[in-house]
Amino acid sequence: MLNIQDIEKAATRLNGVLLKTPLQRSSTFSQMAGCEVYLKCENLQKTGSFKIRGAYNKISEIQEQGKTEAVVASSAGNHAQGVAFAASKLGVKATIVMPKTTPIAKIKATEGYGAQVRLHGACYDDAYKKAMEIHKETKAEFIHPFNDPTVIAGQGTIGYDILESLPNVDIVFVPAGGGGLLAGMAFYLKNINPRIKVIGVQAEGAAAIKQSFYEKKLVALPNVNTIADGIAVKEPGDITTGIISEYADDVVTVSDAEISSAILYLLERCKLMVEPAGAASLAAVLGGKADVAGKRCACILSGGNIDVSFIHRIIDIGLVARKRKLKFRTVMPDIPGSLENFAKIMAGNYANIVRVQFDRMSADLDPHEVILHIACEVGDEKHGEKVVLSLEKNGYKVIME
Amino acid sequence: MLNIQDIEKAATRLNGVLLKTPLQRSSTFSQMAGCEVYLKCENLQKTGSFKIRGAYNKISEIQEQGKTEAVVASSAGNHAQGVAFAASKLGVKATIVMPKTTPIAKIKATEGYGAQVRLHGACYDDAYKKAMEIHKETKAEFIHPFNDPTVIAGQGTIGYDILESLPNVDIVFVPAGGGGLLAGMAFYLKNINPRIKVIGVQAEGAAAIKQSFYEKKLVALPNVNTIADGIAVKEPGDITTGIISEYADDVVTVSDAEISSAILYLLERCKLMVEPAGAASLAAVLGGKADVAGKRCACILSGGNIDVSFIHRIIDIGLVARKRKLKFRTVMPDIPGSLENFAKIMAGNYANIVRVQFDRMSADLDPHEVILHIACEVGDEKHGEKVVLSLEKNGYKVIME
Repeated sequence: MLNIQDIEKAATRLNGVLLKTPLQRSSTFSQMAGCEVYLKCENLQKTGSFKIRGAYNKISEIQEQGKTEAVVASSAGNHAQGVAFAASKLGVKATIVMPKTTPIAKIKATEGYGAQVRLHGACYDDAYKKAMEIHKETKAEFIHPFNDPTVIAGQGTIGYDILESLPNVDIVFVPAGGGGLLAGMAFYLKNINPRIKVIGVQAEGAAAIKQSFYEKKLVALPNVNTIADGIAVKEPGDITTGIISEYADDVVTVSDAEISSAILYLLERCKLMVEPAGAASLAAVLGGKADVAGKRCACILSGGNIDVSFIHRIIDIGLVARKRKLKFRTVMPDIPGSLENFAKIMAGNYANIVRVQFDRMSADLDPHEVILHIACEVGDEKHGEKVVLSLEKNGYKVIME
Repeated sequence: MLNIQDIEKAATRLNGVLLKTPLQRSSTFSQMAGCEVYLKCENLQKTGSFKIRGAYNKISEIQEQGKTEAVVASSAGNHAQGVAFAASKLGVKATIVMPKTTPIAKIKATEGYGAQVRLHGACYDDAYKKAMEIHKETKAEFIHPFNDPTVIAGQGTIGYDILESLPNVDIVFVPAGGGGLLAGMAFYLKNINPRIKVIGVQAEGAAAIKQSFYEKKLVALPNVNTIADGIAVKEPGDITTGIISEYADDVVTVSDAEISSAILYLLERCKLMVEPAGAASLAAVLGGKADVAGKRCACILSGGNIDVSFIHRIIDIGLVARKRKLKFRTVMPDIPGSLENFAKIMAGNYANIVRVQFDRMSADLDPHEVILHIACEVGDEKHGEKVVLSLEKNGYKVIME
């Protein structure tokens, strides 16, 4: 069904068309995790994700076989852009069906690569049905996002790339949703060198492949719940899970909080923007989900397509989690000068006030007093403690919120 | 004072120690600017900026001359981390004097590279004086951030790298503050190929090099005002401006708004986190500050060390500027069900409400009414217009804020 040559042929097809993304050693993460951490930056790949590899390989093959001049796919995410870009490069007409709820930016990106976008239905399943209709009516080839040996072979080329730059890699961490990337990489790497461990990483709230791996049968979930939309798949493929069961060493899960923290670390330390699915692999290493001590570990940063308003929220949560943002309330006399006194202490401690809310509607409040809800920025946890101590010394009772 | 061989010698010294950062073509920016845009990702360099190049070259040279076993520098930014990292790699003791106002994260990063950090004074000038004292007392060599031929030669190696991967480059855009990077690159590139245009880019509020370039003498500014702290230099060097006057083709400026917009584009389209100084070069190309039509342009993304709480603000402003966040007020009856009616219309239009504030303290307000201040997220400008239209059709008067 799949053999080494398929993946090496795919690597030849992609050569010169796609980017050789960096495989970059990170001193910071190596230190944090007690191993050698390498990051495979597929977030820097054309279209912002690895999905283009499988799509390009599939459409190339169809074209070489002289089968079709048109393709159709359904996706609200990276697969849409991958198919659109690959089809345009190969001069094939592409129709992408996207759910009506798809963010406008993603629709525009897909159209920008020259595809025709059809909006249909409220969710992926509706869009999928519509795409199948188009496939039947127009004979346009349907490009599956993961459950197709040629797509899987395309994704497996990341394994080829990694061996080229780091032949002595010990463990590879691979995000998994539908399982195309994990299946392709596990198949290739284990066939080339069985000593290399290949570990799939899923979101806790969408772990169908992990269940399938452990129960040794294809498991579909009734629903999924994770911030990692790129790997939020209810039903992985029979082909992908078959390969994964045979070749992967383990499948582990990470929480949304672990993913968020990894995203923020990647931004801060590596200057890289990575989407939640793409940060899952690093989250697994930092979260100690496998025995990595002293090993050379490659984490696949599978994509970088994350909306800036979402990254905005992740930073917000991250700043609070790292105690760089303090939220507390305190009570003060409801008279002129009261806020000034308070603000003076904050300023003297170099704490930057970002929100002030007055609350006079509390039953147990003295009518001459007011509750102040404060949010402020501090340098770190220690600095925050200093600010609170200084307020308390000056007679303010501080209640953290 | 400086010759081609100095830069090529520096390139040999840096080889294998520092990263060969990618020079990456961007289809998006090429399309936007009507030329071929290449990004030199020095934000992905070790320590997160190019400054390590000059520092490493300088400390190597001192060491080869057997002159010293200790160095001292003053900096609140990238130079601190560059000197600390380079010294530690070469086994030289480093003391870095930083102003007391330096963010804790930068102090920790510098200490993390093995340097001893001394906090002194309120601003860079105070820290500089202290560093000179230490230099005189301890004979530790002072490493200047820019006004030193060996440091300049180190920074010039970026020119060497670019010619290696893109020998037919037409124009290079280089951020400039003290002028070390611009001087090194202009000197090298113009000597190798006078056809290549080298354009310096400064922040509008800190344009001492531009003034020096046009007035043909060293100009110092009384003060600087820009978000681009990495190039907010009051007094550039006599050595750097001398070289720049002779070799650069032009020096242009960009506004803080143009820089912010470039930062956001780099995050969204290229998945790269770039600090304000580093985004200035791309801002110049996108802002049409030079004639680039059809040319191959390399933009130096000089660094990526930007605090996440700052990027948080840039996103905030960017979302409002691109009309992805709407702020408006409206008046409604102050009765139960009023907010529900309003919220229903918003929900029906897929607009995500992120803030609601009630205001009953307005002199011309009917006592049965209340003012609502609303902030909401929409997909784009068109979507925002649709939301407003729908509210107006339902009898709400919408006043944008």
